[in-house]
Amino acid sequence: MASPTAPTPSKQPSGLQGVTAGDSSLSKVFGEEGRLIYRGFQIEPLAEQATFEECVHLLWYDRLPTPAELDALRADLAAAQSIPAEVWTVLRPMVGKASLMDLLRTGVSAMSAWDEDVAATRDTDAETRAELNLRIAKRLMARIGPLVAGLYRLGRGEAVIEPRADLSMAGNFLAMVRGSAPQAEEERIFDAALTLHADHGFNASTFAARVTAATEADIYAAITSAIGTLGGRLHGGANMRVMHMLEKIGELDRVVPFVDEILAQPGGRVMGFGHRVYKVEDPRATVLRRMAQSLTSATGNSKWFDISRKLEDHVKEKKGLFPNVDFYSASVYGSLGLDPEIFTPIFAVSRASGWLAHVMEQHADNRLIRPRANYIGQTDREFTPMDAR
Amino acid sequence: MASPTAPTPSKQPSGLQGVTAGDSSLSKVFGEEGRLIYRGFQIEPLAEQATFEECVHLLWYDRLPTPAELDALRADLAAAQSIPAEVWTVLRPMVGKASLMDLLRTGVSAMSAWDEDVAATRDTDAETRAELNLRIAKRLMARIGPLVAGLYRLGRGEAVIEPRADLSMAGNFLAMVRGSAPQAEEERIFDAALTLHADHGFNASTFAARVTAATEADIYAAITSAIGTLGGRLHGGANMRVMHMLEKIGELDRVVPFVDEILAQPGGRVMGFGHRVYKVEDPRATVLRRMAQSLTSATGNSKWFDISRKLEDHVKEKKGLFPNVDFYSASVYGSLGLDPEIFTPIFAVSRASGWLAHVMEQHADNRLIRPRANYIGQTDREFTPMDAR
Repeated sequence: MASPTAPTPSKQPSGLQGVTAGDSSLSKVFGEEGRLIYRGFQIEPLAEQATFEECVHLLWYDRLPTPAELDALRADLAAAQSIPAEVWTVLRPMVGKASLMDLLRTGVSAMSAWDEDVAATRDTDAETRAELNLRIAKRLMARIGPLVAGLYRLGRGEAVIEPRADLSMAGNFLAMVRGSAPQAEEERIFDAALTLHADHGFNASTFAARVTAATEADIYAAITSAIGTLGGRLHGGANMRVMHMLEKIGELDRVVPFVDEILAQPGGRVMGFGHRVYKVEDPRATVLRRMAQSLTSATGNSKWFDISRKLEDHVKEKKGLFPNVDFYSASVYGSLGLDPEIFTPIFAVSRASGWLAHVMEQHADNRLIRPRANYIGQTDREFTPMDAR
Repeated sequence: MASPTAPTPSKQPSGLQGVTAGDSSLSKVFGEEGRLIYRGFQIEPLAEQATFEECVHLLWYDRLPTPAELDALRADLAAAQSIPAEVWTVLRPMVGKASLMDLLRTGVSAMSAWDEDVAATRDTDAETRAELNLRIAKRLMARIGPLVAGLYRLGRGEAVIEPRADLSMAGNFLAMVRGSAPQAEEERIFDAALTLHADHGFNASTFAARVTAATEADIYAAITSAIGTLGGRLHGGANMRVMHMLEKIGELDRVVPFVDEILAQPGGRVMGFGHRVYKVEDPRATVLRRMAQSLTSATGNSKWFDISRKLEDHVKEKKGLFPNVDFYSASVYGSLGLDPEIFTPIFAVSRASGWLAHVMEQHADNRLIRPRANYIGQTDREFTPMDAR
C-alpha cells in the first residue's frame, strides 16, 4: 500500500532517556559521581550501619526512626506478615506452571481482594487516603517476603514456613526460604543487600508503578504493574543472568577465555556491566563487593566471589566497563546458597519498599501521566469497504 | 529537620503532558482538529462500516483484511476463546471480594501460566518472538471478553456462558453477559463502540503496557499493567461515573439544577466533559452520539440519551466544554441494559486490541523506558546511628 505521507522519525532520545518525568524526594542518582542517596542520606551508612526496617521507615516517613518508632514499625509489620489462607488457595493451581515472578505478580494482584482498606481509599479525602495507604503499604511490605518464600517452597513441593515475629525481615526471609535461621553475618549482609536495592529514582518498575498510580489506581494495582515490569530480562532479571553466567564459567581459570569469547562476537556483552545512568562504578556494587568478600570469610565459600573478582578485572581491562549492582548481588546471593530463580523475586521484596514510597508520593500530589506518541505511520489512508478489498 | 539545600521545583509540565515518549504507527490524535486515525484511517468509517474484528486486523497487521484474512482471524479467535478451566479455579475464591477490574487484572496475570508460548518468547530471535507474540495476542484477545463476561456472571451467582463460534466478538459479549443473543442493531452499535475505544495514542494504560513491555516482560505482564492502570478512576472509571451521574439525575427536568449545583461549587466538574488532548469535540463522542440516538430508536428506550443530550447542551452553554468518549459510551451501554459495573471492563476488552498492538510494536523495536526524576528532596543529610537518635 502506498504511503501518502512520509513517516517522521523521532528526534527525541527514545526510552525517555534523560527526560524528567516528574518530581520526587525519595532518592537521587548522581550518575557522574557514582553516588546514590535516599531522602538525602548516602546509601553506604544506611546499608552498613542501619537495618532494612530503618531504611523502610526513612523512605516512608522521611526520617530515620527513633528506637520507639522502629519498634512500632516492626510491630505493625509483624502483625500483618501472615498471608491470608485464601491467597494460597488462589495461587496453588498455578504453582509449577508459572515462573516465581508471574506467581508473585498474580499473588499481589489477588491479595487486594482480602484488604478491606482498599475500597475505602476511593472517593475519600486526601488525609484519610494517606493514612489508609500507609496501612496498606505496611501490610503489603510485611507480606511480600513471606509470599515469595512460600511460593518458592511450594514450587519445590515443600511446606510453606510461617514468618516469625522475632526475626528481622532479612532474617525471616532467609529462614523461610532455607528452612533454618541464618548466621548473624549472613543476615547482616542480606539485610544490607535489601537496603541497597530499595530505591533508585524513576527506574522502569518504579515508573510503571507511578504511571498506574497516577490514574488513582490503588496500591495493589500499582505494585502489580511494578512486579510485571521488574520481571523483564532487561530489568530485574539481570542478577539471575549474572549467576547463570558464573555457573556456566564454573572455574576460575575459565574466566578469561569465557569473557574473550563473548567480546569477540559482534555486539557481545558480558552480563552485569554498565548502567544507563552511572558513568562510573555503581556505588551499590562497591558496597556489595565488600560484603561479598566479608561473606566469603564467614561462610568459607569463596568460589563465586573469586570468579566475580577476576571477571570484573578482565572486563575492566578489556572494555573499561564497571560492574553494576546486579553483578555483585549475584555472588552475594549465590554465596548465601540461594537459588538463582529467587534472585529477581528478592529484588521485588526489597524494591517494594521504594515502589510503595513512590506510589504514596504520587497519590499525595497526583497528576495523570500521559505522554504523547510521535506518530510515524501513514495518514489519510482511504477506507475501502470489505466487498471492494 | 533543617534542609541544607533548597528543593528545586520542577519546571517541566508534570505528568509528561505534551512530552513525546516514543514512536508509534498505531494511532494519531489530532487534538486541535478533533480527529483520530488508526493506522492512517479515520475512525468514523472504521466504526460505522467495518467490524471490530477488522479493526483488530488493521491494528495488528497494518492493513484492512480481505475476506479470506478476516475469516482466518475469526477462526483463530474462535479456536482460542474458551478460558482454561484452571483460570476459573484460580479466580473463584476472589469473586464477591474483589471488583471486576481487580478480578480481570488477576485473571489475565494468571492466564500466563496456561500459555505455553510465553516461555518460548524469552531468549529467541526477533522473528520467532514476533510470531509467538501474535499467537499470544490472539489468544488473549479471544479470551478477555469471555473472561469479563464470566466474572460478571459469577459475581451475580449465575453460571458462566461459553462463547459461541458463530457470533462476532461484540455479539458474543452481549450474549454472554445478558444471557441471549442481541438484536442486530444492538450488536452493530456495541461493535462500533468497541472499535471507537480500541486505541488512543499513549494514553495512560497503553503507556503502562509499553513501560512494562520495554523491559522485555511478556504480553501478559504488560496487559496486566494496562488493566491495573485503566482501573483508576481518572482513566477507565470515567464512563461508569458518568452512568452513576445519569442515574442520580434520573429525570430530564433534574438535569439543569443538577449541573448548576455542581458548577456552583469551587472546582466543581461535571463528569464526561473535556479531555487533556482534544481542544474541540472528541470525535468518538460525535460517532457515539449518533449511535446512541439510533439505538434509542431500535430499543424504544430513550431515557439515558435524552438526559445526556440535555446535559451536554447545558454544560456547553455554561462552560463551553465538549463531551468526551466516556460521556456517550455511558448512555450507549446504559441503553443496552448493561450494568455500570461492567463499563470499565468493556473498555478493557476493546482497548486490549490496542494494548496488544502497542506491546508488539514495542517488542519489535525495543528500548528500555527509563526517565529521570526531578529530585526535590534534601541532599547531604548526615547519618546518625540508632543509639544517638
